[in-house]
Amino acid sequence: MILHLHKTTTQAQAQQLAESIQAILIKQEQFVLVTSSRVKVVPEEAVAFTEKSFPTDTDIQLAGRGYINAVREVNLGNGVVIGGTTNHTALITGPCSVESETQIEAAAELCVELGVKIMRAGAFKPRTSPYTFQGLGVEGLKLLDKMRNKYGLAIITEVRDSTHVDDVIAYSDIIQIGAKSMYDHGILRKCGQTTKPVMLKRGFGTTLQEFVQSAEFILSGGNSNVILCERGIRTFETKTRFTLDLCGVAWLKQYTNLPVIVDPSHAIGYAYGVADLSRASVAMGVDGLLVETHPNPKVAKSDAEQQLNFEEFRNLHASLGKVAEAVGRKIV
Amino acid sequence: MILHLHKTTTQAQAQQLAESIQAILIKQEQFVLVTSSRVKVVPEEAVAFTEKSFPTDTDIQLAGRGYINAVREVNLGNGVVIGGTTNHTALITGPCSVESETQIEAAAELCVELGVKIMRAGAFKPRTSPYTFQGLGVEGLKLLDKMRNKYGLAIITEVRDSTHVDDVIAYSDIIQIGAKSMYDHGILRKCGQTTKPVMLKRGFGTTLQEFVQSAEFILSGGNSNVILCERGIRTFETKTRFTLDLCGVAWLKQYTNLPVIVDPSHAIGYAYGVADLSRASVAMGVDGLLVETHPNPKVAKSDAEQQLNFEEFRNLHASLGKVAEAVGRKIV
Amino acid sequence: MILHLHKTTTQAQAQQLAESIQAILIKQEQFVLVTSSRVKVVPEEAVAFTEKSFPTDTDIQLAGRGYINAVREVNLGNGVVIGGTTNHTALITGPCSVESETQIEAAAELCVELGVKIMRAGAFKPRTSPYTFQGLGVEGLKLLDKMRNKYGLAIITEVRDSTHVDDVIAYSDIIQIGAKSMYDHGILRKCGQTTKPVMLKRGFGTTLQEFVQSAEFILSGGNSNVILCERGIRTFETKTRFTLDLCGVAWLKQYTNLPVIVDPSHAIGYAYGVADLSRASVAMGVDGLLVETHPNPKVAKSDAEQQLNFEEFRNLHASLGKVAEAVGRKIV
Amino acid sequence: MILHLHKTTTQAQAQQLAESIQAILIKQEQFVLVTSSRVKVVPEEAVAFTEKSFPTDTDIQLAGRGYINAVREVNLGNGVVIGGTTNHTALITGPCSVESETQIEAAAELCVELGVKIMRAGAFKPRTSPYTFQGLGVEGLKLLDKMRNKYGLAIITEVRDSTHVDDVIAYSDIIQIGAKSMYDHGILRKCGQTTKPVMLKRGFGTTLQEFVQSAEFILSGGNSNVILCERGIRTFETKTRFTLDLCGVAWLKQYTNLPVIVDPSHAIGYAYGVADLSRASVAMGVDGLLVETHPNPKVAKSDAEQQLNFEEFRNLHASLGKVAEAVGRKIV
Repeated sequence: MILHLHKTTTQAQAQQLAESIQAILIKQEQFVLVTSSRVKVVPEEAVAFTEKSFPTDTDIQLAGRGYINAVREVNLGNGVVIGGTTNHTALITGPCSVESETQIEAAAELCVELGVKIMRAGAFKPRTSPYTFQGLGVEGLKLLDKMRNKYGLAIITEVRDSTHVDDVIAYSDIIQIGAKSMYDHGILRKCGQTTKPVMLKRGFGTTLQEFVQSAEFILSGGNSNVILCERGIRTFETKTRFTLDLCGVAWLKQYTNLPVIVDPSHAIGYAYGVADLSRASVAMGVDGLLVETHPNPKVAKSDAEQQLNFEEFRNLHASLGKVAEAVGRKIV
Repeated sequence: MILHLHKTTTQAQAQQLAESIQAILIKQEQFVLVTSSRVKVVPEEAVAFTEKSFPTDTDIQLAGRGYINAVREVNLGNGVVIGGTTNHTALITGPCSVESETQIEAAAELCVELGVKIMRAGAFKPRTSPYTFQGLGVEGLKLLDKMRNKYGLAIITEVRDSTHVDDVIAYSDIIQIGAKSMYDHGILRKCGQTTKPVMLKRGFGTTLQEFVQSAEFILSGGNSNVILCERGIRTFETKTRFTLDLCGVAWLKQYTNLPVIVDPSHAIGYAYGVADLSRASVAMGVDGLLVETHPNPKVAKSDAEQQLNFEEFRNLHASLGKVAEAVGRKIV
Repeated sequence: MILHLHKTTTQAQAQQLAESIQAILIKQEQFVLVTSSRVKVVPEEAVAFTEKSFPTDTDIQLAGRGYINAVREVNLGNGVVIGGTTNHTALITGPCSVESETQIEAAAELCVELGVKIMRAGAFKPRTSPYTFQGLGVEGLKLLDKMRNKYGLAIITEVRDSTHVDDVIAYSDIIQIGAKSMYDHGILRKCGQTTKPVMLKRGFGTTLQEFVQSAEFILSGGNSNVILCERGIRTFETKTRFTLDLCGVAWLKQYTNLPVIVDPSHAIGYAYGVADLSRASVAMGVDGLLVETHPNPKVAKSDAEQQLNFEEFRNLHASLGKVAEAVGRKIV
Repeated sequence: MILHLHKTTTQAQAQQLAESIQAILIKQEQFVLVTSSRVKVVPEEAVAFTEKSFPTDTDIQLAGRGYINAVREVNLGNGVVIGGTTNHTALITGPCSVESETQIEAAAELCVELGVKIMRAGAFKPRTSPYTFQGLGVEGLKLLDKMRNKYGLAIITEVRDSTHVDDVIAYSDIIQIGAKSMYDHGILRKCGQTTKPVMLKRGFGTTLQEFVQSAEFILSGGNSNVILCERGIRTFETKTRFTLDLCGVAWLKQYTNLPVIVDPSHAIGYAYGVADLSRASVAMGVDGLLVETHPNPKVAKSDAEQQLNFEEFRNLHASLGKVAEAVGRKIV
């Protein structure tokens, strides 16, 4: 249950009450307490302090439509706003990994050329084998920082584990929590303490319930700038790398108040289907679209098969505006 | 391996050769033999008769792009053509089950109102419990026949098992093989002997490879009018009934030569997401879209939660043309 | 809800009542009616006729522990009884397919050598490709019949689709409904009309709920000799062919009253793990174990990789008795 | 490819070579280098230094049977040795979470009573909701330490994320990496730098290939004391919490050289099936068995439904010895 306390409540009172009813305390315009969803009526000791209460069916609470029946707005700072009532579908592109300054600068120039405002690239790669390229680490973050300063792009990059979460928070405009780190309490708690936007990717073995509950860790930490990203789940089908769950996207749009981004590149794992799936995602009316591109995918150090080359991306880009328009949205 | 025999080959020669090399014999303009895909070179005894040969990697042979690098065209007879180079996306709608003449006539009238040319409804329902409505059987087929005659609609209806396959073939314009019957050899073989179009639904526990190999039973029986239908696969996610596999649709478009239809209603299982998923499917550039509608979904005898009411379908219908146009296609 | 009618009820009364309350009528010692599980109280018109009633949570009714809180006993006729209070674990072995008289006779002799009373082999194979061996059909059934007569073995063989269900019923001692045919109403209904034991395999994409509801089609048809078989489900893991669901077996033992057999051969799909999984299954306390064997697996026309050769099976057989004894059971 | 260098190779030479061929360097009796598995022949510059080389098919290298064709032995220090040629099946029991000194001491006493040498309990719980019990943290570790000292038990406890990995390493005898943290590079790398035994649980959405590759991070870090734990994977079946993958266990035994432990409690998620699945696991010949127990499961702060009460565990324990003996193993 979510409790909005009267604005006259002091911090000491709010804290004492939080402990007394085992609730998490969030400071917003007013103090907000969140208890377990098993609490269905306002606890006696909280009645006097409570302005408004929101009982919830499950521990999807702050992210639920029963609490806020609209899509939250996330402002990226560089003029890009997503979610809310903007009807924006924000494009994000760039390579899987930062590999070199030349490579990442080529990616940045492509963004500028096409008016894409958000560039992605990983510096800490959550590879499944220790014997492959693991990313450039902090050096990679610095290259991304350079591109931001030079080209005015917002940067989204992934935090792999909590040993370097502070670095990623410092160097990024949007912190990406990857599919394999979706349950990482160390990362989630740190992201709850910042106000930087966080894009939380769904774990590929994760139910929608668990996915959104993971977002609750960040929201209940005090950071309301959370974006969800569907990137494919693991199923019995192996012709494609994962299975993009657009039924799940429909569910997220219906039952949560968070903006939703789709990543078709990781879902299918092969470049041939990325354009079709991108258009499908835009036609769903999502808040953002993340497509991997590389100046020369064949030599990419990771995800070589799924990244579009620049020509393919230009062609895709040219088609997205019409699809967005057909569903009353705008590509930004 | 597929072998096209010289047109001078006699039936007796073709049959003898088929037995000798353990191949399936198909009569088309010329005789066609299909052996196991493990055969990689033209067998010695076949060399003299063979005009052209198509070695294949797997037992996706007649349906594969290595054999025909285009989408096959299926002509429904009532003026509707799908696949081929038509750029058509054919709409199919109607209730889950034929329940009564009043109900099915209302559905037919909705089709006429909106220009939808193909109506669906089931008479033999593959229910998972013996204690629920099992469909009207042949009586249902007759009601569908009446609607075809009265309204000029093409009828698609499902065959549940091979005990009534002849009836369904007789009364339908498109024979639907449902997800639970996808492996039914009795049905597949009968459908191979007709020339009526067959829409084969993917089993929800079925890989793409098995799905298309199932189509090979029909194609190798001599019926080339096969349409594939993606209708959701079973995954760990249970917030939605199934998971629509649009990555799989991208794969089918890339690697097979059969038209592809998407059924978002059965995939998500809830009406709220059907419109978004329909637009996504159309934006993928599929050859058809199947949406369940019911004059009053709340009282439907099956699939009550996923059928759109007529007002919802009219709204959806109004939006599909623009999406189709955005990707260079036309709703028919 | 299941209703046991008073023994004085006439057939005419029972039939009229069945129609009136939309129930299925079964003739046992007394008339039994089964309505939808949504019926929670005895319908008014049935009160006077009802001796005992069993409300149920779901459409697992006749197979549920709420109806019969014990394991049903199935008598195979040749002296083998499974289920009930026998504490028997019945062994079933034989090749995937009948390939020739020599091959099936070798299998039969192995059974006799080791005291195995039930032999399996398929004559109608539900292959996923039309370009592979499809089974010997009725000729295969006749070879199995010959082995039964010569060696006194009970024969279990698979019905693939309803076109040949009568043949399989006629020639087998246990009718096997395979994983791909588990939803086939044509087969299920015919099997409900016989009293021959039926072994129903779980579809590999099928939930436990659907699996047991499929058994309800047979039980409600009047045949109480139903045995369930777990044979592996389809998951994301592809190192093994399927994933043997022993958690599911624990659930079936807890919540249903039907004997349970495990088939580890199809589950793992590779011979190396069959012995370990067989011992695990026996240690679970199951009612039967089905292991594929072949005189020469390398040349088998189907399932070559998973069949044990005779030496491997002899070694496995030698170890099973001790495991069974450790859990208070006996291999028969 | 794994390279064993000549014992005369100096550290400087080994390091230079490692950089030159992009290999990971491990110090054992001799220097060991591991390159990507794509390297199939000994690189030219390494030939002079290489005593023995082991090409591998995939990045399962140090854990593979092609490298060591036996099960590695892990010595827990308190007299318990598992794996190797011991034929031991080590029991591990205890509650899901440390909740209080009284509770954990009761668990310790149960271990002593039954001769169980390894106690488990979590202090950092990877809960899926922020609004539930998150574990006692370091305070919990200290209580476990107290039990070790008082009762001579080996302690296994879970590290949730890399913020507290040093604490868990310090206080435990076996470090447990949980299913949700299986990909956590921060944890894996720290565990590679210690010599304490590590039990790595399979992620529930993780393939066997990825699972064992995760162990490669620890092994290639220099810690050879790695134990694998199968604890159920996520499938479409929801009657049970997860699906215990004993086919996977058979694969791990066949293709890896690491000891394997099975955790049936988390797999099924309900107490009723734990005993049967435990006996099945022991009959598979696994190296260890982990069963959750709680003095009073009904009031447990986590996993209430799956923990056995002490009486249930005593009964289970009494039966395991016989099953182990039947397969030539011994419970320790």
